Amino acid sequence: MTTASALTGVIPPVSTPLTPDLEVDTGSLARLVDHLLTGGVDALFVLGSTSEVAYLPDGHRKVVLETVVGHVAGQVPVLAGVIDTTALRVLDHARVAAGAGADGLVATAPFYTRTHPDEIAVHFRTIAARGGLPLYAYDLPVSVHSKLGTDLVLELAADGTLAGVKDSSGDEGGLRGVILGRRDRPEIDSFSVLTGSELTVDSALWMGADGVVPGLGNVDPHGYARLFRAAEQGNWVAARSEQERLLRLFQLVHVGAGRMGMSSSALGAFKAALHLRGIIDHPATALPQIPLNADEVARVKEYLATAGLL
Amino acid sequence: MTTASALTGVIPPVSTPLTPDLEVDTGSLARLVDHLLTGGVDALFVLGSTSEVAYLPDGHRKVVLETVVGHVAGQVPVLAGVIDTTALRVLDHARVAAGAGADGLVATAPFYTRTHPDEIAVHFRTIAARGGLPLYAYDLPVSVHSKLGTDLVLELAADGTLAGVKDSSGDEGGLRGVILGRRDRPEIDSFSVLTGSELTVDSALWMGADGVVPGLGNVDPHGYARLFRAAEQGNWVAARSEQERLLRLFQLVHVGAGRMGMSSSALGAFKAALHLRGIIDHPATALPQIPLNADEVARVKEYLATAGLL
Amino acid sequence: MTTASALTGVIPPVSTPLTPDLEVDTGSLARLVDHLLTGGVDALFVLGSTSEVAYLPDGHRKVVLETVVGHVAGQVPVLAGVIDTTALRVLDHARVAAGAGADGLVATAPFYTRTHPDEIAVHFRTIAARGGLPLYAYDLPVSVHSKLGTDLVLELAADGTLAGVKDSSGDEGGLRGVILGRRDRPEIDSFSVLTGSELTVDSALWMGADGVVPGLGNVDPHGYARLFRAAEQGNWVAARSEQERLLRLFQLVHVGAGRMGMSSSALGAFKAALHLRGIIDHPATALPQIPLNADEVARVKEYLATAGLL
Amino acid sequence: MTTASALTGVIPPVSTPLTPDLEVDTGSLARLVDHLLTGGVDALFVLGSTSEVAYLPDGHRKVVLETVVGHVAGQVPVLAGVIDTTALRVLDHARVAAGAGADGLVATAPFYTRTHPDEIAVHFRTIAARGGLPLYAYDLPVSVHSKLGTDLVLELAADGTLAGVKDSSGDEGGLRGVILGRRDRPEIDSFSVLTGSELTVDSALWMGADGVVPGLGNVDPHGYARLFRAAEQGNWVAARSEQERLLRLFQLVHVGAGRMGMSSSALGAFKAALHLRGIIDHPATALPQIPLNADEVARVKEYLATAGLL
Repeated sequence: MTTASALTGVIPPVSTPLTPDLEVDTGSLARLVDHLLTGGVDALFVLGSTSEVAYLPDGHRKVVLETVVGHVAGQVPVLAGVIDTTALRVLDHARVAAGAGADGLVATAPFYTRTHPDEIAVHFRTIAARGGLPLYAYDLPVSVHSKLGTDLVLELAADGTLAGVKDSSGDEGGLRGVILGRRDRPEIDSFSVLTGSELTVDSALWMGADGVVPGLGNVDPHGYARLFRAAEQGNWVAARSEQERLLRLFQLVHVGAGRMGMSSSALGAFKAALHLRGIIDHPATALPQIPLNADEVARVKEYLATAGLL
Repeated sequence: MTTASALTGVIPPVSTPLTPDLEVDTGSLARLVDHLLTGGVDALFVLGSTSEVAYLPDGHRKVVLETVVGHVAGQVPVLAGVIDTTALRVLDHARVAAGAGADGLVATAPFYTRTHPDEIAVHFRTIAARGGLPLYAYDLPVSVHSKLGTDLVLELAADGTLAGVKDSSGDEGGLRGVILGRRDRPEIDSFSVLTGSELTVDSALWMGADGVVPGLGNVDPHGYARLFRAAEQGNWVAARSEQERLLRLFQLVHVGAGRMGMSSSALGAFKAALHLRGIIDHPATALPQIPLNADEVARVKEYLATAGLL
Repeated sequence: MTTASALTGVIPPVSTPLTPDLEVDTGSLARLVDHLLTGGVDALFVLGSTSEVAYLPDGHRKVVLETVVGHVAGQVPVLAGVIDTTALRVLDHARVAAGAGADGLVATAPFYTRTHPDEIAVHFRTIAARGGLPLYAYDLPVSVHSKLGTDLVLELAADGTLAGVKDSSGDEGGLRGVILGRRDRPEIDSFSVLTGSELTVDSALWMGADGVVPGLGNVDPHGYARLFRAAEQGNWVAARSEQERLLRLFQLVHVGAGRMGMSSSALGAFKAALHLRGIIDHPATALPQIPLNADEVARVKEYLATAGLL
Repeated sequence: MTTASALTGVIPPVSTPLTPDLEVDTGSLARLVDHLLTGGVDALFVLGSTSEVAYLPDGHRKVVLETVVGHVAGQVPVLAGVIDTTALRVLDHARVAAGAGADGLVATAPFYTRTHPDEIAVHFRTIAARGGLPLYAYDLPVSVHSKLGTDLVLELAADGTLAGVKDSSGDEGGLRGVILGRRDRPEIDSFSVLTGSELTVDSALWMGADGVVPGLGNVDPHGYARLFRAAEQGNWVAARSEQERLLRLFQLVHVGAGRMGMSSSALGAFKAALHLRGIIDHPATALPQIPLNADEVARVKEYLATAGLL
């Protein structure tokens, strides 16, 4: 399976179920993949932020890749996050991903270092040249503390470095600039523009985005698939209605706010929801995240009930 | 060699010389170690930010560790940076460091993730409990985007989690709070407080810090050693004078400003200086850093000349 | 004229034309008001960021208010920015605005100070209680360095503190949260939700926003009016097309990037465009902004030509 | 009284006592001035951040100026904060300050706007050219979100724009760069370098700073005066000991942390301490700050007792 045409549709970043002793729970992971495929998603993105990639040692990362690629068995493309500080470290992950049979790579700008935009270009060009798989840029300023500029993204699209971008910056003007810039350059019409902002999927698609990478899609893949299909069919009112239901559901990410980091609150809530829905065996999150307490889990349950997911 | 008493003195973060094809230049690295030991340093810190740790794949990291630990052969303690996003990933590096014979570990707070202070405590406790070596916290908000609070550092000192802190936050009030807090708790008097701010070493020592981890110490270890000895002997005027000379020399870190990231400008300037001084064979920096150009190298040379280092 | 029902439509933040010696150019200001009214806008917002409010002394502010309110003479509502650091200073501006006959007040969260959300609530409640006019919150984190939370905005809407919000945060998920929250509370259905993000007006309206406050609306009020009318009539394809044309035009804000601050580049470009279009006599911006040079003005002219505005 | 030679010594930013209905409490203000002068301070800085300048309307500001300048009656220089967003607004305050008889002006870089360093230079040059009094730059990134570069400060010193700088940035390396840069330029030896970091006064003086502007100096002027005199006499051990006592006392700024903004917690604690010490009649802080509660005031009292101030 290749991704020569633009990747489109719903591409959830797959949660990584863990056992109580924090090993990858491969059984639950396979069930989660089935849940997502049954839900109607178009591709999978493993080892993204929602997958707790920043918490997983290399051994865990490899197990995740092999489990998902093996279980998917070519039904849909599998993109692999190769999240690390700079190009050479990213390329080590890329080799593992290629070896496991992934269909594409997803890399952020450098982090930890203080990096110039020209160096960010070198970073992506190095990964693309040696990574052996289509490369998607992951624009995530909240984690890497730099924003990919519209011109940079279009330049890296035009020279073949990037196969697409996952824009999780929340900068809808920038997203739209990329979409219009692509329209002006027919030679990059296979460049895939994906939004990572799970609350504005209908409007992103309306602007011309190709798809969405929603963390909340783990909990409710059917909802995001319905949203995407409605948009595809031009039924924008239905798309909006679905999006609004999902926006209300999304508030579950705040249940732990104040008592733990925002990462832990969101990741813990997604896993609690998957556990409550019977899809994964354990809601455990990786160290050093503080787990949700009983009260917080009960609130997740209420959100699920309200959204009709219990 | 252990670090049971508080680590003190000049502990440079060792640059990582690279060959033109970006492999570790072990010959140059050994010469750099000799240069530092001859210069009078008290310990070495490998795989820190100045070592380009965020740019080095695991294979390079291992070669650095083995080269330095082997070459030092117990003459001084060798601390190993185990820089990665969260505890379980850090522990993979810790195993390699312990296997190579390092004397201590240096870890930052989590990065990439958005982490609560209570989770930062779990992070360090996990590394200390399983890392098998004394653990030093590396407070580097410019890279990890969170600051270690004074109370947190003292709590982790008191419970035995941390053997010391390298404070590169630039927050001298916070540094001083840790120093006074230690004075109030005789049970943690072996806790080592090191400043990473290479421009205020005399005043940090005056406040009661135990030592310094100066990136610029690669270029001029003799200068930092003289500074430390002068302070030790109570000759604060000489210490200040030496510090002022080093502050002027430090301006070389800005030669590439505007044309590259601040990381690249500083790291490139340190390596250019080491190359100009004949200590390393190549001034190459790791991808994706933009290299200094001839004009910038010429300005580094002027700084060296002014400082009496050519 | 009152704003008892929700304010809707296109409400441009009116530029403040200046003479070469930096006095308010009241003749140009009156012509600009005519240009906007002829363009079909629904209300005016004077003394906003686009009006260079942060650069204008109180005397200038008063002249602007009196000129615009007088010239408009009740044809449309006039909102007055009362931008200052905290509530008591804001109230001094509010008195002037009320005296001049403004129809509403627009205030940001406190700035310069480091302020808790509970204090932000007190701030708005104080202004509403004593300001004597309907109060609109201006959510502008890029200037005030704090974000108004969705819950806070809804709470201040529900208790009657706020008549509306101008959301210039770029956080479309937050904007949508306010829109849905309002829908759940019929008692606040006159609360006005306005977007300040001039690049996503079609999608903001699609989500349920009531209107837009576009800085670029000074340059092309007809465009924003067409966009709003198309959306109102359910002609979303026409709205999108208009928005896309305006997004391309908006790039003129970057002509001075690198050589001056982002504020100056955008404000200077708006004024250069108004001058090139013959609406204002001088393109001067207030101190200490660096003016556009001839080359930058030429590029503004090209953007206008491309957009069909010359 | 002029400040033609470099301003030196302890220059506290004077708190602004308020009545319960939030008018300036001029009786308490006069007593506070006496307390400071008796404490041995060398000059006064009114209308700084510690004075709640960002909370005070212009009328309050004028009363403060007239009260303090009148009460001081030339015994020491009085500097006036002219804190506002940009140059023309600052100049309105400068006129009031000059009219009231202030001896110098203190202005920050522009805020609210996004400003280029070249524009910051124009800002200060405009204020200096038209303000009619010696101008001190107030480097306060935590409030204005830009940092004054060392080269910019030295350039503005060399061309006569600035009479001095109050560095509250916490960047001790930058402070030291200004001090050394001044030493290299004998023509600017009357340029005054003051630290606003109240926890590192001994080391700042050791580096060559001329004085300190300590908010905590309201509470304990005698302590800061002793510190400065000890340093002046070369008794650095006594200076350090005094500084360490003051650092412990300074922790009272955190009593309200979490429940209010950092500004309110510090300002409220200073006023609570002044009230507990019997110097001001009311501990009221300006709107919209949340006041300290009884428990927090009790903790302030403990800090005072420990410091020997009750």
